[in-house]
Amino acid sequence: MGGDESIVQAARVSYGRGTKTVSEDRNLIRYLMRHCHTSPFEMVEYKFHIKLPIFVARQWIRHRTANVNEYSGRYSVMPDEFYVPSPEDVRTQSKTNKQGRSDEPIPEEIANEFIQDLQETQNLLYEKYNNYLSKEIARELARINLPLSTYTEWYWKIDLHNLFHFLELRLHPTAQYEIREYAKIIAQIVKETCPIAYQAFEDYRLNSVTFSAVELKILKNMIQYKLPTFEEMLEMGLTKREVEEFFTKISFINNFK
Amino acid sequence: MGGDESIVQAARVSYGRGTKTVSEDRNLIRYLMRHCHTSPFEMVEYKFHIKLPIFVARQWIRHRTANVNEYSGRYSVMPDEFYVPSPEDVRTQSKTNKQGRSDEPIPEEIANEFIQDLQETQNLLYEKYNNYLSKEIARELARINLPLSTYTEWYWKIDLHNLFHFLELRLHPTAQYEIREYAKIIAQIVKETCPIAYQAFEDYRLNSVTFSAVELKILKNMIQYKLPTFEEMLEMGLTKREVEEFFTKISFINNFK
Amino acid sequence: MGGDESIVQAARVSYGRGTKTVSEDRNLIRYLMRHCHTSPFEMVEYKFHIKLPIFVARQWIRHRTANVNEYSGRYSVMPDEFYVPSPEDVRTQSKTNKQGRSDEPIPEEIANEFIQDLQETQNLLYEKYNNYLSKEIARELARINLPLSTYTEWYWKIDLHNLFHFLELRLHPTAQYEIREYAKIIAQIVKETCPIAYQAFEDYRLNSVTFSAVELKILKNMIQYKLPTFEEMLEMGLTKREVEEFFTKISFINNFK
Amino acid sequence: MGGDESIVQAARVSYGRGTKTVSEDRNLIRYLMRHCHTSPFEMVEYKFHIKLPIFVARQWIRHRTANVNEYSGRYSVMPDEFYVPSPEDVRTQSKTNKQGRSDEPIPEEIANEFIQDLQETQNLLYEKYNNYLSKEIARELARINLPLSTYTEWYWKIDLHNLFHFLELRLHPTAQYEIREYAKIIAQIVKETCPIAYQAFEDYRLNSVTFSAVELKILKNMIQYKLPTFEEMLEMGLTKREVEEFFTKISFINNFK
Repeated sequence: MGGDESIVQAARVSYGRGTKTVSEDRNLIRYLMRHCHTSPFEMVEYKFHIKLPIFVARQWIRHRTANVNEYSGRYSVMPDEFYVPSPEDVRTQSKTNKQGRSDEPIPEEIANEFIQDLQETQNLLYEKYNNYLSKEIARELARINLPLSTYTEWYWKIDLHNLFHFLELRLHPTAQYEIREYAKIIAQIVKETCPIAYQAFEDYRLNSVTFSAVELKILKNMIQYKLPTFEEMLEMGLTKREVEEFFTKISFINNFK
Repeated sequence: MGGDESIVQAARVSYGRGTKTVSEDRNLIRYLMRHCHTSPFEMVEYKFHIKLPIFVARQWIRHRTANVNEYSGRYSVMPDEFYVPSPEDVRTQSKTNKQGRSDEPIPEEIANEFIQDLQETQNLLYEKYNNYLSKEIARELARINLPLSTYTEWYWKIDLHNLFHFLELRLHPTAQYEIREYAKIIAQIVKETCPIAYQAFEDYRLNSVTFSAVELKILKNMIQYKLPTFEEMLEMGLTKREVEEFFTKISFINNFK
Repeated sequence: MGGDESIVQAARVSYGRGTKTVSEDRNLIRYLMRHCHTSPFEMVEYKFHIKLPIFVARQWIRHRTANVNEYSGRYSVMPDEFYVPSPEDVRTQSKTNKQGRSDEPIPEEIANEFIQDLQETQNLLYEKYNNYLSKEIARELARINLPLSTYTEWYWKIDLHNLFHFLELRLHPTAQYEIREYAKIIAQIVKETCPIAYQAFEDYRLNSVTFSAVELKILKNMIQYKLPTFEEMLEMGLTKREVEEFFTKISFINNFK
Repeated sequence: MGGDESIVQAARVSYGRGTKTVSEDRNLIRYLMRHCHTSPFEMVEYKFHIKLPIFVARQWIRHRTANVNEYSGRYSVMPDEFYVPSPEDVRTQSKTNKQGRSDEPIPEEIANEFIQDLQETQNLLYEKYNNYLSKEIARELARINLPLSTYTEWYWKIDLHNLFHFLELRLHPTAQYEIREYAKIIAQIVKETCPIAYQAFEDYRLNSVTFSAVELKILKNMIQYKLPTFEEMLEMGLTKREVEEFFTKISFINNFK
């Protein structure tokens, strides 16, 4: 529902008649993104039909500003589908990142063993599940030993502002690999359907760097205060307004106490 | 975005394969409404472009689960448009309802005088506003004595579940007349675009009556426990399932301690 | 944070000076509950520290208007704790309620077998989990075959209005037994800390009955329109205001087209 | 409700046993803030009783993740209280910021005239309001020509994460002066009650600078890649972890394509 043009339409109502003369749509969208004027992005709405393992679903559902209808293991028999990682994605625990896996793959043999064991266990658990059901045990109880790797599915509806927030967190290298893969596909869909907004999201959020107060003190002495000319900066892709904003940031750093 | 069919689609994913044989769409939607299974209704999304007086906007905005982009009196000059009630809508303070107006109209003369005075005041205030602006006073300050009857406008986006909640509160006789008029028009739009869901909303929420525990004790002795036959109830419009639910309610009352 | 008195305090700001003379606190709280004036109930806030199986956590988290911090299986090793039902709670699939278990217990032998098998499987799965960890496989991967019966824990913070909504859904007989047991304990805590509000919740929501439009048509002919006297109704526990509301409901039914 | 210690308590449940040895509370809170792990901050809750002019209330209420009970002009007579700016705060429209006032004060004479006219108008409008009420016109109608400068009051309850978001937007120089003054007082209260979290908010959000992708290209050539030593950076106030993060940022810029 909606696209880049809905963002512009919503923003124009805020700025009303006063902005008739103002810059064209692209600049407006980029201005909104840059200055965290988030409400116009809420006017675009996406709905996805997604199949995903339960351990991914549990991370995903933490994004509360969304609408969800999930497959119910109380109403229906859970299907015989489980997630198994590829051998190259089986990694050791990261030393630096307490919550993730490292970049080093595990010895191939161990990885293969692990995967085979996952699959055998999943088959065993599904067999037991079926067996419980055949003994008339209620579905809501029979399923409680199914593993977190079991696939579920849902409809997920979310507005673009909250979707960007989801993408920012879930495209991040510290997010679990499996949810990152979903985030990448969703990012691709947004890129195709709201190309201007997505580009702005990449430029001002995904590929931005934020320096804290103390870091700015250090940076202050590392910067040579020789700026490119105004024209050079325009050529590099900044708008006039952004050049002014850049000046402001640099002089803020220069004067940082 | 979406309609009755999106509600069904979302509900079917929850019930999964287990409900393939179940009742058709209408019954499913009515079942969901009756049992407060609200999430499938969140899959339908409405967006409205609305012009409304500020005192109405202030009540409206209390519905938080919605997206809003409003005209800004900081960016733009407020237009010269104000709400004035019709003479027949000018009423005295209600004696029974502390927050509303009564059903009795006020003497015609007083009503007309009131309306004329409102208009004259609005003209005066707008003139002053213009005068402040002409003296270069910032728009965000110049506007602070504009009245609550000034018109603003906004885009308002909300899902159907939350829209029904809005309608339930704002169609209610104790809601202020002016917002009720907006609610009626929105209700009409929903009725045309999601006819089955709207009918269910009318039958199970708008035109329902809820009895509290103590009221049930009284009702218990007022009911003659001679029910119509099953067939008669089906003819009156209940489904089989609803007849069973009705029996359950009546016997719950009959056995109320 | 807060209690019955915070509800009153918040409501009084809405009614402002105009209600100085109005009824005492209990009546005010009951009036708010009866008429769905929900915002004062949002001024009371509860925080719980809860240990619960993952399949319960997945239902619980669907209540989005709450704050949650959950134990993370990416950061930390999952503890060796799993849910197992009592023999008397192992039931067959309900025939009437597609999503639940029936009232009939399963033959004792089958129930015991089921429970024993659950436990053995849980032990096996935890052993495998430990084994994966010992091979340096990242925690976020090693856990994916842990079962939905694994215990997790979280802090859960929610306001009283949304907590009542949680309780209404999760105390309901169609809610899964395991989450109902948590809801009962929470209900007990609310009862002790906000006794007036909880009583109102019981009287006007938990123990209320709602009749739909079609049901009202049937009820219309079942009611003998001989009401108790005003005094009798006061004695039964209605306030004056509620007696008037009751009259309105009955005459609404009587005149139902 | 709660303070710095509640943030730590909530975060520790996520990291579970795995972090027993980890850094002390201050570092943990600062780490959470730096990496946008926002949910532990939601465990602290603030409630304020605030008197504010309606035009400020209309900006304030846009923060939807909060609980509000406002004085009602339908139930109660609006009090005779109106906002008037100080002469030094009366400014011209900003040339650069379309939504705000400039830094240049307006000629003193015009400012004083403006203020006097505001007051006279407010008196006139309140007199008319009283007159309407004396003619028995319903309060909800009598008030519609009261100005946006009329004071209202409310209870406002919000968690610390959302409060920081409010502060970030409303302490910003482009926020309207009048709401900024409220934000400053609230910031002071937070600083006193959650000193560690507030300091982290200042260091990592309020006083941070974010560079976009294009800006990083420019910055890349302005930076001399001679960093202070590790020890110097610790002395300046970075933790070990932050020094590593700073290296990563600088090398990210250095390698920016």
